[in-house]
Amino acid sequence: MTDVAVDPRIERTRAVVLEATLDELAEVGYGPLTIEAIARRAGVSKATIYRHWAGKLDLVADAVARLKQMPQPPDVDDHRARIAGLLRSLAEHVGTSRAAACIPALIEASLRDDAVREFHVRTSAERLAFITSLLDDAVADGALAEQADTRRLAELLVSPIFFRKLMAPEPFPTDEVDALVDEVLGPYWAPATARR
Amino acid sequence: MTDVAVDPRIERTRAVVLEATLDELAEVGYGPLTIEAIARRAGVSKATIYRHWAGKLDLVADAVARLKQMPQPPDVDDHRARIAGLLRSLAEHVGTSRAAACIPALIEASLRDDAVREFHVRTSAERLAFITSLLDDAVADGALAEQADTRRLAELLVSPIFFRKLMAPEPFPTDEVDALVDEVLGPYWAPATARR
Repeated sequence: MTDVAVDPRIERTRAVVLEATLDELAEVGYGPLTIEAIARRAGVSKATIYRHWAGKLDLVADAVARLKQMPQPPDVDDHRARIAGLLRSLAEHVGTSRAAACIPALIEASLRDDAVREFHVRTSAERLAFITSLLDDAVADGALAEQADTRRLAELLVSPIFFRKLMAPEPFPTDEVDALVDEVLGPYWAPATARR
Repeated sequence: MTDVAVDPRIERTRAVVLEATLDELAEVGYGPLTIEAIARRAGVSKATIYRHWAGKLDLVADAVARLKQMPQPPDVDDHRARIAGLLRSLAEHVGTSRAAACIPALIEASLRDDAVREFHVRTSAERLAFITSLLDDAVADGALAEQADTRRLAELLVSPIFFRKLMAPEPFPTDEVDALVDEVLGPYWAPATARR
């Protein structure tokens, strides 16, 4: 993605192209996706697209990254509430967002295209690292027991949300998040926090 | 899949066609997959394929079902050893098998084809139900505490294996399975079993 001056018309064109990219990606998958079809859908020329993006992967990465923006945790002091709030946002996002609708296309394209794969696993790792950091904060504050393996626990919190998205009939419902958090973190809350 | 007499030549032809189906599926994905390309790869006529299978989904379902065959738990009395053994087989299978290499293609095709989706989520649900049944057996024998939510725990055991397959750079290593089982089931083992 090239940095451009914040001319509102250019910004609007960029936004329309990124929307068209997500729509095409969800509709045809990564392999058959073409700049031509995106340009047609967005109502711009191919030249306009190439002025802003180097190629297909650059465009897809930009579209997915913009829209997937990691949900932020709620601004509360209680660690459990922050973690559960973030996971509720993630479940909502993974279940319904247009960016998340492209995850299957990215997974499938990752088999055939190393650059897509690098992008896909990196963004997934960043998400996991962010949740791990919330758990590390809780350990540092003494809210979670020190022996908690925060990386493994973060993966246990996130995995069922993606499992349901990719391998089950229905996405993970936000009202099951509390039960998930209790199951995974239950044994690790320090006494004061454990009694809710 | 039509039932046929167990003529060894017919069985061999079927096996060659199913292998070719998995190779094609992993290589091109579900959408672009054609009976013609499978026939060419298998060295048989399209008519031969249509004699045994109703069409593309029937063929893919048969190929994936045959090769994915749910790993069986080791034949041991100890519940923890059976559960961990089965999960090690599953991790090995999901990480390396040719059938599992088709999971991304099935996920992607599920977005566009309801029959693929039904097949994909059903086989996934059967796998989960089988692991849940092992946990239920452990509860029935008093090895796991009664309050264990076995369906949720089964999902927690399985999800990270698929998460790594689909969202991370490396598959779930079999030598991490014991740590996973300890993390998820640790709080539920009845005292006698808990002390290993």
